[in-house]
Amino acid sequence: MSSVIKVDIPEKSYEITVAPGSLDQLGAKMAGLKLGKKVLLVSNPMIFKHYGERAIASLQNAGFEVVHYNLPPGERYKTLNSIQKIYDVALENRLERSSTMVALGGGVVGDMTGFAAATWLRGINVVQVPTSLLAMVDSSVGGKTGVNHPQGKNLIGAFHQPSLVLIDPEVLKTLPAREFRAGMAEVIKYGVIWDAELFTQLERSKHLDQLRYVKSDLINYILTHSCQAKADVVSKDEKESGLRAILNYGHTIGHAVESLTNYRLFKHGEAVGIGMVAAGEIAVKLGLWQQTDTERQNTIIKKAGLPTQLPADLDIAELIDALQLDKKVKSGKVRFVLPTQIGEVKVTDEVPTDTINQVLAEMKT
Amino acid sequence: MSSVIKVDIPEKSYEITVAPGSLDQLGAKMAGLKLGKKVLLVSNPMIFKHYGERAIASLQNAGFEVVHYNLPPGERYKTLNSIQKIYDVALENRLERSSTMVALGGGVVGDMTGFAAATWLRGINVVQVPTSLLAMVDSSVGGKTGVNHPQGKNLIGAFHQPSLVLIDPEVLKTLPAREFRAGMAEVIKYGVIWDAELFTQLERSKHLDQLRYVKSDLINYILTHSCQAKADVVSKDEKESGLRAILNYGHTIGHAVESLTNYRLFKHGEAVGIGMVAAGEIAVKLGLWQQTDTERQNTIIKKAGLPTQLPADLDIAELIDALQLDKKVKSGKVRFVLPTQIGEVKVTDEVPTDTINQVLAEMKT
Repeated sequence: MSSVIKVDIPEKSYEITVAPGSLDQLGAKMAGLKLGKKVLLVSNPMIFKHYGERAIASLQNAGFEVVHYNLPPGERYKTLNSIQKIYDVALENRLERSSTMVALGGGVVGDMTGFAAATWLRGINVVQVPTSLLAMVDSSVGGKTGVNHPQGKNLIGAFHQPSLVLIDPEVLKTLPAREFRAGMAEVIKYGVIWDAELFTQLERSKHLDQLRYVKSDLINYILTHSCQAKADVVSKDEKESGLRAILNYGHTIGHAVESLTNYRLFKHGEAVGIGMVAAGEIAVKLGLWQQTDTERQNTIIKKAGLPTQLPADLDIAELIDALQLDKKVKSGKVRFVLPTQIGEVKVTDEVPTDTINQVLAEMKT
Repeated sequence: MSSVIKVDIPEKSYEITVAPGSLDQLGAKMAGLKLGKKVLLVSNPMIFKHYGERAIASLQNAGFEVVHYNLPPGERYKTLNSIQKIYDVALENRLERSSTMVALGGGVVGDMTGFAAATWLRGINVVQVPTSLLAMVDSSVGGKTGVNHPQGKNLIGAFHQPSLVLIDPEVLKTLPAREFRAGMAEVIKYGVIWDAELFTQLERSKHLDQLRYVKSDLINYILTHSCQAKADVVSKDEKESGLRAILNYGHTIGHAVESLTNYRLFKHGEAVGIGMVAAGEIAVKLGLWQQTDTERQNTIIKKAGLPTQLPADLDIAELIDALQLDKKVKSGKVRFVLPTQIGEVKVTDEVPTDTINQVLAEMKT
């Protein structure tokens, strides 16, 4: 079973392929895309150990000349310094404008490789081969690339669409369980904001925290629906001037929680889980959403093994201050994505600080 | 006398205004463009001393909230480190997606401010207010932004179109004479590659090396024709997939000369002057161009006070090796822009290394 999802963007359209075992088709898929001969495969040591050789063999069999570079693993290396190292490798190996960087890894590898490709020689090709659930359903699709500023996540970056996204669900079998659960937060998000059928499917499924052990039809369903949701939204609004903002459901408070806990206590998806709980409660308090719906959402979040409460020692005043640093702040007003029914949200910057305060206070353990 | 040139690019069109005294109109012009309230004015200490206050006053009078930051002057600070400092100021002052960076300065300030704007929050507005001749006729128009890699000029960058280019010819009166002459190289380039009328006008003018002392009708003519030439080319090919390559006339060898002399011996325009002489001679040797036309070109280059010879101690083998690092190299082949008649060029990667060798050897002092 395999699916192809088309992302339609002015000047650059591309396909997302979801197919078990497709890692071995990477070279063949790329060969049809009029890319240059040279490929810089960027990964990290762990991922490379599992899948590097297969990726390289597939590329070489299709006639590509491949060099590879491993980034140090982890969000704390998602910096301009790491990007400079990719530039150095690109220079040493004389990558040209027609050359391609291939990101083989999770969100950090994908975002950094994408940003390096966006800015090397003012933009070369990039192909995304996500290996984490988060990267498969979120960061590899849509062209957002970037690194962190010491004082804020993803503040530095560019929009740079990939030439291809290749998703092989089988690689999820080596993903640590906690990473898998964190990725599920974004899947749940698509159910709440866009795809009520996906939401219902998630409600019906028993073990969202260990989905990769279940038969692959369900994981394929989840990956395909999630990527389709993201592709729908991104195709309608590539540069985030309007609709795309809804993808930030759960992220406004999520980002602030991550930032305040120095990106160490929570995985991104875990913080988004907390953020969705908060956004749901805010929506209920503002009379936008049914109490029963927010409970249905929270049940799924818990079933996925994600946290739904804030640490007792988190300073709520600091958290509210951190919201101001969000990239989507406009004229000093914090923008929230709030659900109105399952599968539908609205964007608003009219949330009283008191309401935010109250919801966050109630979420403390 | 003032002119407005339209740059027509998919998704983003903008205007270049050429008008004496227009620096004082900066705020008013920007006010009509739906930009946010916050402006970060980036300049360098020398330029800021001359024009900073006027620019800020004009912005404030139009209702903008202005902060400013001075980059250290010179090409050797055109690095990612300097960009990080711009990010820090952007963060401290909470620049938002709707905010604008204004580049007040020469090519280095323009390229760096443009790149910082391209990559801060994945892209905010930038307005270019060029103060050098080079920046007016070349770098401020067309959206190329970037910084140098320790081993190559402009290897890191992005395409990011400005919202407005505001050219006030009167600010040229404070430009050092050598900088003025260097900028004239790009003007001569437009005459050779695109605008035969401009070429003839340059032939007729007496003092190309001190044009800013002559009456402003001539400088306005030169600025307008040069910007129009660049706008024509860029509108047809924003991302340099074809036609835009002709703007690199004189730049292939020019960049290599700059790189080999560590960006210290020659100004960019001076190296381009040398590069145009070399490209002209190569075109003659390949039977593409008339000997008389290359002599007419070289006469103008000399009249503008630009060098036409290579330093005696420059290693030609190293120079040829450095050509391989050019961003436009494709499958290892160096791409040359060669004139076929005044106002017309062709792009080719079929130049025998022997011919390049011979021409460069003849150009040694």
